[in-house]
Amino acid sequence: MSEQKQFVFSFEEGNAKMKETLGGKGAYLAEMTQFGIPVPPGFTISTEVCDLYYKNNQKHSEEIINQINANLKKLEEKTGKTLGEAIDPLLVSVRSGAAVSMPGMMDTVLNLGLNDESVAGLAKKTGNERFAWDSYRRFIQMFGSVVMGLEHNKFETELDAIKHKNNLLVDTDLEAPHLKELVANYKTLIQKETGKLFPSDPREQLQMSIDAVFRSWNNDRAITYRRLNNIKGLLGTAVNVQAMVFGNLGETSGTGVCFTRNPATGEKKLYGEFLMNAQGEDVVAGIRTPRPIEELKSIMPDCYNQFDKIYHQLENDYKDMQDMEFTIQEGKLYILQTRNGKRTAAASVKIAVDMVKENLIDEKTAIKRVLANQLDQLLHKQLDPVAKKTAEVLTKGLPASPGAAVGQAVFSAKMAHDWNAEGKKVVLVRAETSPEDIEGMHAAQGILTARGGMTSHAAVVARGMGKCCVAGAGDVKINEHENYFTVGSIRINEGDVITLDGSTGEVFAKALGVVDPELSNDFNELMIWADKYRKLGVRTNADTPHDAEVARKFGAEGIGLCRTEHMFFNGDRIKAVREMILADDVDGRKRALKKLLPYQKDDFIGLFKAMDGYSVTIRLLDPPLHEFLPQTEEEILELAGEMNVTVEHIKNRIEDLREFNPMLGHRGCSVVVTYPEIAEMQTEAIISAACELAKTGQKIVPEIMIPLVGLKQELDFNAEIVRRVAEETMEKFGVELDYKIGTMIEVPRGALIADKLAETAEFFSFGTNDLTQMGFGFSRDDAGKFIKEYLAKGLFEHDPFQTLDTEGIGQLIKMATELGRATRPEIKLGICGEHGGDPESIKFCHAVGLNYVSCSPFRVPIARLVAAQAAL
Amino acid sequence: MSEQKQFVFSFEEGNAKMKETLGGKGAYLAEMTQFGIPVPPGFTISTEVCDLYYKNNQKHSEEIINQINANLKKLEEKTGKTLGEAIDPLLVSVRSGAAVSMPGMMDTVLNLGLNDESVAGLAKKTGNERFAWDSYRRFIQMFGSVVMGLEHNKFETELDAIKHKNNLLVDTDLEAPHLKELVANYKTLIQKETGKLFPSDPREQLQMSIDAVFRSWNNDRAITYRRLNNIKGLLGTAVNVQAMVFGNLGETSGTGVCFTRNPATGEKKLYGEFLMNAQGEDVVAGIRTPRPIEELKSIMPDCYNQFDKIYHQLENDYKDMQDMEFTIQEGKLYILQTRNGKRTAAASVKIAVDMVKENLIDEKTAIKRVLANQLDQLLHKQLDPVAKKTAEVLTKGLPASPGAAVGQAVFSAKMAHDWNAEGKKVVLVRAETSPEDIEGMHAAQGILTARGGMTSHAAVVARGMGKCCVAGAGDVKINEHENYFTVGSIRINEGDVITLDGSTGEVFAKALGVVDPELSNDFNELMIWADKYRKLGVRTNADTPHDAEVARKFGAEGIGLCRTEHMFFNGDRIKAVREMILADDVDGRKRALKKLLPYQKDDFIGLFKAMDGYSVTIRLLDPPLHEFLPQTEEEILELAGEMNVTVEHIKNRIEDLREFNPMLGHRGCSVVVTYPEIAEMQTEAIISAACELAKTGQKIVPEIMIPLVGLKQELDFNAEIVRRVAEETMEKFGVELDYKIGTMIEVPRGALIADKLAETAEFFSFGTNDLTQMGFGFSRDDAGKFIKEYLAKGLFEHDPFQTLDTEGIGQLIKMATELGRATRPEIKLGICGEHGGDPESIKFCHAVGLNYVSCSPFRVPIARLVAAQAAL
Repeated sequence: MSEQKQFVFSFEEGNAKMKETLGGKGAYLAEMTQFGIPVPPGFTISTEVCDLYYKNNQKHSEEIINQINANLKKLEEKTGKTLGEAIDPLLVSVRSGAAVSMPGMMDTVLNLGLNDESVAGLAKKTGNERFAWDSYRRFIQMFGSVVMGLEHNKFETELDAIKHKNNLLVDTDLEAPHLKELVANYKTLIQKETGKLFPSDPREQLQMSIDAVFRSWNNDRAITYRRLNNIKGLLGTAVNVQAMVFGNLGETSGTGVCFTRNPATGEKKLYGEFLMNAQGEDVVAGIRTPRPIEELKSIMPDCYNQFDKIYHQLENDYKDMQDMEFTIQEGKLYILQTRNGKRTAAASVKIAVDMVKENLIDEKTAIKRVLANQLDQLLHKQLDPVAKKTAEVLTKGLPASPGAAVGQAVFSAKMAHDWNAEGKKVVLVRAETSPEDIEGMHAAQGILTARGGMTSHAAVVARGMGKCCVAGAGDVKINEHENYFTVGSIRINEGDVITLDGSTGEVFAKALGVVDPELSNDFNELMIWADKYRKLGVRTNADTPHDAEVARKFGAEGIGLCRTEHMFFNGDRIKAVREMILADDVDGRKRALKKLLPYQKDDFIGLFKAMDGYSVTIRLLDPPLHEFLPQTEEEILELAGEMNVTVEHIKNRIEDLREFNPMLGHRGCSVVVTYPEIAEMQTEAIISAACELAKTGQKIVPEIMIPLVGLKQELDFNAEIVRRVAEETMEKFGVELDYKIGTMIEVPRGALIADKLAETAEFFSFGTNDLTQMGFGFSRDDAGKFIKEYLAKGLFEHDPFQTLDTEGIGQLIKMATELGRATRPEIKLGICGEHGGDPESIKFCHAVGLNYVSCSPFRVPIARLVAAQAAL
Repeated sequence: MSEQKQFVFSFEEGNAKMKETLGGKGAYLAEMTQFGIPVPPGFTISTEVCDLYYKNNQKHSEEIINQINANLKKLEEKTGKTLGEAIDPLLVSVRSGAAVSMPGMMDTVLNLGLNDESVAGLAKKTGNERFAWDSYRRFIQMFGSVVMGLEHNKFETELDAIKHKNNLLVDTDLEAPHLKELVANYKTLIQKETGKLFPSDPREQLQMSIDAVFRSWNNDRAITYRRLNNIKGLLGTAVNVQAMVFGNLGETSGTGVCFTRNPATGEKKLYGEFLMNAQGEDVVAGIRTPRPIEELKSIMPDCYNQFDKIYHQLENDYKDMQDMEFTIQEGKLYILQTRNGKRTAAASVKIAVDMVKENLIDEKTAIKRVLANQLDQLLHKQLDPVAKKTAEVLTKGLPASPGAAVGQAVFSAKMAHDWNAEGKKVVLVRAETSPEDIEGMHAAQGILTARGGMTSHAAVVARGMGKCCVAGAGDVKINEHENYFTVGSIRINEGDVITLDGSTGEVFAKALGVVDPELSNDFNELMIWADKYRKLGVRTNADTPHDAEVARKFGAEGIGLCRTEHMFFNGDRIKAVREMILADDVDGRKRALKKLLPYQKDDFIGLFKAMDGYSVTIRLLDPPLHEFLPQTEEEILELAGEMNVTVEHIKNRIEDLREFNPMLGHRGCSVVVTYPEIAEMQTEAIISAACELAKTGQKIVPEIMIPLVGLKQELDFNAEIVRRVAEETMEKFGVELDYKIGTMIEVPRGALIADKLAETAEFFSFGTNDLTQMGFGFSRDDAGKFIKEYLAKGLFEHDPFQTLDTEGIGQLIKMATELGRATRPEIKLGICGEHGGDPESIKFCHAVGLNYVSCSPFRVPIARLVAAQAAL
């Protein structure tokens, strides 16, 4: 380590480009300082120090200690105050700040520097003894829990005891003498519980606090947050040490949080809230309900005007919507923090499109700005406005995160998680949420809180998740012990169904219908830009004309996967399917298949019509035949009656078809090797449908896809049947049709011999679900349990069934892509596994040079956007 | 096609090197002609003509017809006879002959050239009217069936009619007038059945016969034979047209077949048989009983002496045991054919070793001469071939593990064990076996299963034990409740004696005699030579000291795979295993594992001792835990009593552990991620055992192998446990041990990231069973059924579970080999799947540069030989 290396940077030394080193918060504070914006002075300890702290067994080198001390000295000089001094003490905040924002996940210490001497100095300087001692007790409380590890509620108990003893109702009733007594009690408590004294040396306080913040980088909730948000490759958090300013020095002081545009809708209008005579934590914690920012104009017009200028400046400089914290100390405005604001999907789209129109950013930047995963919010359901109109509103809170949620009320994160694991839909109801609730929030359809504002924890996190949230519904009285809540005389028990409207804040005491969302013009404009830049085609997986129509509305350019087996279950069809399976010979099977043929043909006519000329890829029957047979005694008996065969015959057939590992069994193309007549019927249905439509003038190019091919011979066996029947059918109709034969690449061996498969196949579609199953040796049905453990123990970063494993499975895709193109340069390559709708996976598909991705209809816009982002 | 191209070769023009063109038979006939050996003159139509015949829509070019005619003319000149002539007609044989011998698979026409005119000429020339007409009727019969496609038995019916009409008993009673009538009837028959006249033009006869032989190249049995014997890359068959000589011209004529050495034992002594006054087909057909060749000495001493000289000459020329056909025509000896003779494994070994000692061939040639697959015969008990010949086959399954077994049928492992303990010999009959049956399999003489393929549990385990097994005998219907099985209407009860032939898959409903194997000195000598030339190491798969000792005797140089799970089933151990699985927490599991520890340690001490310093690779627990739990209500009830837990608890646990696709489930290294304590116990047992032996002065380098690794993180998680416990254990014993950590490469993804795995793994062992399962997407337990169809329909040449699929799975092995060596050049690479004992697969392992193969003890000698053959 070179001695010249800089680990600590004063705010004057940094800038916004140094995010990696200074963290987001530190870099913005430095940048604002450079811009001349009123920021309390301070310095940032770099993320590298966090990394070294862990590498160096949670110790710091002398060099680092020296740099911290030097910067502290400079800060004391700049403020003219001294840490721990008895006359005019310097107080500082110690805050975390990683390169990527992780709101509320790591720790903060405020009011640091207070001890028995400096508290007197603070009292004297501010002329407010109560304030000084209140700050002191808050500091000890925060330090005790964050740095020394005591449980928060132990301090609350002491506080309650004092209030009780003095017959006081609320915290603000406490006077200086009470607070002095409380400080003494807190210190005793700390000594009793930790065996250590509360450190009165402010430099020791500072170092301990810095280390505590570093340690909070690796607390459970921070690790979970990084995993859930796919944040990786960071060194650690930076630590910002900043002179305190006080919003709680009386009625000319205050504090607030503000967005430069509406983070829920994107509307271009200052949006925020503030509290007079309060510290920042009062706003965030949701203990007092804050006032809208507009009201500041009348209370403190100068400050408001200054703030108005500053926020325009910041937005112009950063060219993005800003989320700012400010404090007014005795009439003087300080900006404590600014950062790019979190926003809903709707806001994200509107802000991006608006900013293009305002010439702040260009189209490409706008495309890159919108988080694809968030779009789900816009694409998912809203409450049915008609049903809503007549429904009685139970209560109303703040519209904290848009969308709709219907589910059973649960009162703890654990319950939310457990019930969700059982397949139930739940709404998490909490007085307020805390970072420990994150997993429960994930599991819930939506979140309802009784306390807190638009920037409370619940609101911020829910918006990030794209999850519906109603916050601060003050009429909701929660009994957490007995798991119910009341609104007036109405009682909602655990398990009762409620509905939330996150866009209005309304709560309903029953299930309401939901409807598909309407896409805004901004959204459509953004999609048009995305289409302009993307290279990847976007198709959809659809088995019904309805799905196909929805997908077309979302911009799908064809069907990448039509699973024909789903068509086998409806009504009378399943009878014919079973008759086919139970038949003793080819003739019997052919007779049964003949009954299926007209159904299948109609299915395809419907799909072809819905896709109106776009390509439709139809996969021949994929699952093993036993999936179509009944399981229970009852059903078997019924079937025996219907089919006029013995129960024993059916049971024997079920036993014949039973497999130890159906996933590696007799399915896909290998079923056709045994029963060629199935592929014959399906081909006839597809080609007949296309021929009929061709006669009406509609041009269809059916793409017939053969599943589960691992051997060239399997493909050829199937392809010969398809080709033969297709020719026969076209001849019968007197129509010349262009059709294609392709294969799924979903068996690892298929990828390895893709050059040979491409001799026959005119297209490949990667079936990444199976490729992942067989590549890893993980059955999707069984591996869920231990994949969770893999994630928890850090063996996986992502579930490979959700996000494509590019290292291993991706290699197979890359290999098959290259081999396939080497044999047939014009071969069409796509993906139709679940991964086709996952942003990270789509990026890989772009990088590897596929022609298209195919995903579920509701993910089509996401795929379009990500494809454009990948191309840019 | 150039006009100069030669398609037809007279015997004077060819030689033995032209096998590809002339076929084996043609090349040898030409070679013998060159050597001055008396061969009836003739010519060969090349294999290329066969190829062109098929390509040219079963027609010949004019050029080819011209060359055939020109050669026929030369043949007529040479013999002084003319085809179809009325005075002294030329008769010819038309025979197939491909480059690789396919005995009896293709067609032959003899006595060609006879018609109503030439038959008179033949009669006159030989002075034997009966002979002439008998030849004529034989010719029509052969031509009618081979060339014109009539069923053979229709001619037999005509023959019988004549005999019946004239009260004649045997064919030889027929006189010339009868035969004339028969000829007329044959001609009528042909016309009636085919609508065509029997062709009287001998040139037409010739061309039709040549084409029939070409067509027989692609008859069903020839195609099957080529597939079964892995014969490929040939153009087709050649056709040999040769002047007929007659062994049936009276008492100075005769015909015979001879081997230059005994094809059963290899003894160096002329071995053959002959018939006087007969044609070759009479010898082969077995209608008259031939006489041993020695007797010819007294009957025709001149011919015998000439023959004696010729056979020595041929053996010296070809340097291999010859299989010759000869005919004596009126005292003159002709050699009709010679080729390398087929032989038993014992003969093969003895002849190869003898010939080295006779300086006929060198050691390398001797090694290459012995067919590795045949060696199985020498290593296992065999059914007495004489007894077998007359025994009726009850049914046939797959020849899953070679050898012979005679014993009383039992239907459960427990019964097998109990009866064996009483001194009875039993054959275990099961629908399929599972790991619980191991003890019963051990106790049985052999195993018969109704289900499962060549790599089913029964097959794999039986091969490992060197125990006879017939698997997947689908006609066997087992009643497990009443302990009997039926095949059709035949019922075999518990206690009835049955016999299995594991080399053919045959099952007999009575006791047959068996002969024990004996390894000859010749065998041992050949093995020593093999070891001198091979590059591949040969290890064994062994789970018990007994297996290890057997393998050592067969020359194994270490254990490549010790499957620890088999050790978990014996006696009290299974109780502890179940206790572990049923435990509610880590402590409970650790308590149960502690009980297993001493057993496991003893297992390893035994193995290490048996291998006496050779490397021992121990695989940590591989199967899913549910395999260790009971299945039936009864067993569950019993276990609940033993464990003092509720039946419900056990059932819940079974339900917890149940998997849809166990093969892709929670097993191998992923079980250790959940239950690290299992790997801890196993490591402690392995290292303790090695330490104890180290203290006695025996040096052991245990190789600990982690199964089913697809992720670097899985390997590291497991390896860290192994390393930690190993260090702790060595410290406890005060012993410094060299041990290695490696991994199976058996999950496709593992092969793809082998470079990364090699950062941790010091060795790789390819688990080709699983690699084949996951690479193809074929479950071993389920795919048997459709793999049979794939083979029948020509989609597979071999079952990929028997012979490694080099095209696909081999690619993964090659890739992993290269990636692994790139990271760690000294990495040890081996294979321990079933393919480790398969000759073709071993050749691939050599070619790809593995360090060793590991196979079941009884295949070790085969592996040694093949490894040497691959190296030469």
